Amino acid sequence: MTPKTPNRMLRVNEAGHLVVGGCDVVELAEKHGTPLYLYDEAEIRRRCRDYLSEFGTRFPQVEIAYASKAALTMGIARLMDQEGMALDVASAGELYTALQANFPAERIKMHGNYKSDLELRMALEAKVGRVVCDSLTELEQLDEAARKMGTVAEILIRVRPGIDTHTHELIQTGQVDSKFGVGIFGGEAHEAIELALKCEGLHLRGLHCHIGSQLLETDAFERTVDQMVEFLALVRDDLGFECEDLDIGGGLGIRYTEKDEPPTVADLAEAICPRLLRALKNHDLSVPRLILEPGRSIVGEAGVTLYTIGVIKDIPSLRTYVSVDGGLSDNPRPALYDAVYEAVVANRVEEHAACEWVRVAGKHCETDTLIDDTCIGHCEPGDLLAVFATGAYNYAMASNYNRFTRPAVVLCCDGQDELLVERESLADLISHDRIPKHLAAKEAAEDCKQQG
Amino acid sequence: MTPKTPNRMLRVNEAGHLVVGGCDVVELAEKHGTPLYLYDEAEIRRRCRDYLSEFGTRFPQVEIAYASKAALTMGIARLMDQEGMALDVASAGELYTALQANFPAERIKMHGNYKSDLELRMALEAKVGRVVCDSLTELEQLDEAARKMGTVAEILIRVRPGIDTHTHELIQTGQVDSKFGVGIFGGEAHEAIELALKCEGLHLRGLHCHIGSQLLETDAFERTVDQMVEFLALVRDDLGFECEDLDIGGGLGIRYTEKDEPPTVADLAEAICPRLLRALKNHDLSVPRLILEPGRSIVGEAGVTLYTIGVIKDIPSLRTYVSVDGGLSDNPRPALYDAVYEAVVANRVEEHAACEWVRVAGKHCETDTLIDDTCIGHCEPGDLLAVFATGAYNYAMASNYNRFTRPAVVLCCDGQDELLVERESLADLISHDRIPKHLAAKEAAEDCKQQG
Repeated sequence: MTPKTPNRMLRVNEAGHLVVGGCDVVELAEKHGTPLYLYDEAEIRRRCRDYLSEFGTRFPQVEIAYASKAALTMGIARLMDQEGMALDVASAGELYTALQANFPAERIKMHGNYKSDLELRMALEAKVGRVVCDSLTELEQLDEAARKMGTVAEILIRVRPGIDTHTHELIQTGQVDSKFGVGIFGGEAHEAIELALKCEGLHLRGLHCHIGSQLLETDAFERTVDQMVEFLALVRDDLGFECEDLDIGGGLGIRYTEKDEPPTVADLAEAICPRLLRALKNHDLSVPRLILEPGRSIVGEAGVTLYTIGVIKDIPSLRTYVSVDGGLSDNPRPALYDAVYEAVVANRVEEHAACEWVRVAGKHCETDTLIDDTCIGHCEPGDLLAVFATGAYNYAMASNYNRFTRPAVVLCCDGQDELLVERESLADLISHDRIPKHLAAKEAAEDCKQQG
Repeated sequence: MTPKTPNRMLRVNEAGHLVVGGCDVVELAEKHGTPLYLYDEAEIRRRCRDYLSEFGTRFPQVEIAYASKAALTMGIARLMDQEGMALDVASAGELYTALQANFPAERIKMHGNYKSDLELRMALEAKVGRVVCDSLTELEQLDEAARKMGTVAEILIRVRPGIDTHTHELIQTGQVDSKFGVGIFGGEAHEAIELALKCEGLHLRGLHCHIGSQLLETDAFERTVDQMVEFLALVRDDLGFECEDLDIGGGLGIRYTEKDEPPTVADLAEAICPRLLRALKNHDLSVPRLILEPGRSIVGEAGVTLYTIGVIKDIPSLRTYVSVDGGLSDNPRPALYDAVYEAVVANRVEEHAACEWVRVAGKHCETDTLIDDTCIGHCEPGDLLAVFATGAYNYAMASNYNRFTRPAVVLCCDGQDELLVERESLADLISHDRIPKHLAAKEAAEDCKQQG
């Protein structure tokens, strides 16, 4: 049975239950509780392979680096290693997680617009494959740190190509007015390359750029390719710099709802590779390794969040509110980016055809709407709601707001479910709380004077 | 020395360092690291007392319940107990934290638009002072649970007064079109009271409403008072219900920037109390206990976040970006609510007079702007930035996005600093991660078939 709900083909078993990775989600909810983050392992692997093959067949040398900010656990790092992906990290915590999961350091790229001394040192000690340097300040810092440690840092320089994209302003990253990278316009990128080439502690391997996230057209990538090749020709002529690695970032959009029609990975590869090869040839440039950094498009659609439906309120002549047992804390994206999702009542998917328009509300102490206006099948308190395409930036951005415990994350494959992240307990919530001595008593002893 | 930066009087010591609760923030940063959440204990206490006295002198019987969602740790719960405050909780986690801190259950109110069975049971077992019932469904559930346990739940019913407020839509809560409460319009509130009066497991003590948050005018409170008293008269006449507790919620705004001019607590009390007493008298209603639920206005302005300044980028003829070592993960409010903050360079406050316009950026792997456009004194990498009025919904909403460790929270009083929350470690980040067996190996053993 494969009813088509909004825009995706669903697997549903004979009981009318949604199936993810071969697992009956009603059984998963009983076993693990809700809210619950689910990943379909086969879907993640398929998308990794898609990138590797679509780009690999169109370009001589390719590296696909999973952007771990989308969702990183030790298990996900292992999965990426098994698939032959490289890994982008952007903090001490992401690097630590990858290393603890035995992800090979030589395939790790260290990102960040402001890397702390600790982060630079960790990256050098681990001998990560590339440090993506984001500023002149960082080049100097890293050079000094590397020389002190008697090593040489393998680096890329992140440039701002000055490309505007059609996406939410919070996830535009390649425009001229951005905190990221060094500008091509204004000469800073030129200066950075010149500096890096002189630094004994740095080995400049290539350039990096990133234009934004959740992009639904390929045209911005095409403009980026043109822009970067022009710049490569310029700095080759001016500085004699031959680029070995050209990293053009990530940002391919996914299908959150039926309104989204993202390019396929093949579309993206077809838009980028021939154009890039042609442009390189036109400028008589050698062909670098091409690096991509997909995150959302690897894990986003492979994720589903399961909730238990609670109170259902009908506000006469206005709308029906369906409350679920999660909300802003496990999925801040509707509030942050006006993100829109689709859902089904997961324990009676077959009833979806006769859907009713409702607003799905979270259970936080504020107006935390998960889905503003969506059509789901008939539901009652105690039913399960499955929200689709929640694999990217949901678990990663989860908070303990209202002291909610963060959900478990479960990986599903062939009917087997395995924990990627254990659910938090109430005791976890207070594990870092401390009660200062003077507050332990029933009454305040002596007042602090109010002095600033 | 008390230089006036934007709109607040600052304490600054002879070294030119900002002082919070008598503590030199440069010393705090050295001791505890950054980012760092600071609270001025005296300021929190002063605001509790302000509420208790301004309302207490204007109304016969008053309860001030701290809305713990704004910021709750075991230490903060203790502080509220010492000040004689009541406490609002809205989840199992908040209730658990309060109880573990020995906060007296009889002064706890349990909130929530969708309380799970666990939450209702916890509230009954702890014998919390009031459960604020949010729906007809919940009244039935709670009645059944209480009777099963051979107890009686002391309850309020949350009604939707249908008041629109001038605030961000995510924190409007009392409008007709809301997930919260039962509507006065449409008769649902009437029906809920009738039901509650019949339930043997419920003792209906009064009504609750809440209209929104960060309100900068008192007029919406005045309209709420009128609306609620009209309704009290109606249900007294229809159902013989005498209201013992009238809870009119919280929501008083605070001064984030000099543009905000919130009413004082005295203004609020003066707007509410005489009007309420007059309206009650006009309707020949007995005078209930008046309950308020301030959260933000207790802790918001008592909080300061300290960051270390890193990379500073000047984008010619556009702007200067000042990056700090936190961002979206420790303060999601700019991204969520377009919140605006003020800041100073905390280790050279005296230079603030000659300020420069900059954009303060976080260090996350997206465009996480902390302050879009603000005037701070001259700064260099390694300087400290203090961002004001970050005491409410910052620590409470903090995440581990990009696997950042969450900052420590420190309480400052008379030059003494005490931990309220310990900083997370890198090891904490992976403490709940699990690696499924089949991912531990270097290579994937057997593929899962892709079946949904």
